[in-house]
Amino acid sequence: MKWVIGIDIGGTNLVVGAVAHDGSRVIGDITQPTNASRGANAVIGDVVTMARSAIADVRRADPAAEIVGAGAGAPGPLDTRKGVVFLTPNLGWVNVPLRQRIRDGLGIPVAIENDANCAVLAECWIGAARQGKYVIGLTLGTGIGGGIVIGGKLYHGASDAAGEFGHMTIQLNGRLCGCGNHGCIEAYASARAIARRAIERIEAGEVSELTAMAKGDLNSVTSRMVYEAAAHGDQLAQDVADRTAEYLGAAIANLLNIFNPDIVVILGGVSHAGEALLEPLRREVASRAFKPAVDACRIVAGELQGLAGVYGAARSFMDQHEAGLT
Amino acid sequence: MKWVIGIDIGGTNLVVGAVAHDGSRVIGDITQPTNASRGANAVIGDVVTMARSAIADVRRADPAAEIVGAGAGAPGPLDTRKGVVFLTPNLGWVNVPLRQRIRDGLGIPVAIENDANCAVLAECWIGAARQGKYVIGLTLGTGIGGGIVIGGKLYHGASDAAGEFGHMTIQLNGRLCGCGNHGCIEAYASARAIARRAIERIEAGEVSELTAMAKGDLNSVTSRMVYEAAAHGDQLAQDVADRTAEYLGAAIANLLNIFNPDIVVILGGVSHAGEALLEPLRREVASRAFKPAVDACRIVAGELQGLAGVYGAARSFMDQHEAGLT
Repeated sequence: MKWVIGIDIGGTNLVVGAVAHDGSRVIGDITQPTNASRGANAVIGDVVTMARSAIADVRRADPAAEIVGAGAGAPGPLDTRKGVVFLTPNLGWVNVPLRQRIRDGLGIPVAIENDANCAVLAECWIGAARQGKYVIGLTLGTGIGGGIVIGGKLYHGASDAAGEFGHMTIQLNGRLCGCGNHGCIEAYASARAIARRAIERIEAGEVSELTAMAKGDLNSVTSRMVYEAAAHGDQLAQDVADRTAEYLGAAIANLLNIFNPDIVVILGGVSHAGEALLEPLRREVASRAFKPAVDACRIVAGELQGLAGVYGAARSFMDQHEAGLT
Repeated sequence: MKWVIGIDIGGTNLVVGAVAHDGSRVIGDITQPTNASRGANAVIGDVVTMARSAIADVRRADPAAEIVGAGAGAPGPLDTRKGVVFLTPNLGWVNVPLRQRIRDGLGIPVAIENDANCAVLAECWIGAARQGKYVIGLTLGTGIGGGIVIGGKLYHGASDAAGEFGHMTIQLNGRLCGCGNHGCIEAYASARAIARRAIERIEAGEVSELTAMAKGDLNSVTSRMVYEAAAHGDQLAQDVADRTAEYLGAAIANLLNIFNPDIVVILGGVSHAGEALLEPLRREVASRAFKPAVDACRIVAGELQGLAGVYGAARSFMDQHEAGLT
């Protein structure tokens, strides 16, 4: 059988595994902390070692295994044609020739891809969006990323910069975003922003169960705690969750009016809130977007959890290999 | 030579002409008022008569002419597969089987397409966006419409509803839009909204040359007058123009971050303001969007003026004919 190594380089963890060519399974997957402060060389060294281990596992399990290549997902912006990661604040990388470095380490063809693109592509391949022809995926994590998949293939745009949904302005002179712009959806509805909005209101004197949940250390409040507190009936947490649906609903309604997707798939930490997030979100989208676009679209949570990045990186390798980019 | 009849059904005018298959010229083009209040039958009757006249002109000019079909652009939403216009407030049409009706009248294959899509497609075919591979077009007229062209082909989305850029929320609880949503870019930067914003400020007591230009009848103020007054140094008009660039800049920056186009082409009445609109707009986009997306993109005005709809409708016919939709 043919196998592709999938490599998911995150700010917190590295995940590597061997993915069957038909997406049916992953073998030899390993997760370990990134420890990005060690620098790009050490991280890429780890990734190569992990990939070799996955290759050894595959060869044991399938003596006829053919390892066709490796795909690596990393926080963008990056250039899939040149194989270079330009700048990743989370990793502290600048102009790292990631494709060449992994290729040198493994001696097989390699492709690189934006990590959010990988996760969305995986959901389209074997996850919650596999019936979709026009798919928008949003990753709601520390930041907000995304990807566009048309007819099963990632849409990259003119310079691999497509799908940066987190930096869509929904409030012209709104909250300052980490990107320097004001009013980006990321400044309202990322995991960090959801927690932040709750913390600000508690600091301003509002009462909430979150204070006790965080044992008095407000900086330890997370978006997950906000949804938990809301589920317990906490009024402030419920209001923060309601407004999150309002902000995200406006952003996703924009994407429906612009792109007319048949599936919007929500990924990342905040998506674990499940229907408590999705149900009011769908209502908000329906109230804002055009009816033909609303009627054509399902909004669902991702299914693949922790291995989405590995599956997607492998699949991205296959697509780029076919296009002659590896 | 092969010819395609291009039909542009607008709220104000009907324009019909015969378009050479290679886009090199239009023959026999006629413009006449729509007079939409007469109803769909009368309008479609006129369009068929105009098309017959264009066909006769082509046959005179080119005795070997082959008329392969006709494309008709109309205000959406419509279904290119079924050939039906669902609803056009400007024309008062509901569920009009436009494709069949024109086909019956002319006895040739027919395709229908959204009018903004036609205009953008024409600019990609033979106008200002002809070098573009990933093109976004915005039509800034009475309302704001748009179209997406990838690799020379219109992107329709799941239900022909893609490209409704006018109804992108840029201000969460902002101005009420005609669509029922709040804060749509159309409510700020359409021709009507630009005039409206100036009028409101004059009504609130601000002084402007626009009052004299409109001979005291503020309801006759147009967006064109606003840009004229700004060019004369009128402070209020200049401020309205500056803010228009700010609103539109936020919307177009969103499209850059989402779609990473290589060309954004601005069409419609407001685009006649030229560099007075485009220069501050480019600055605003550059200050808001991601650098890799800004660096990859040119923002230009359309070139085709009044015949864009006719060219684009003809080109849309060719593409849909190839796809078996006529």
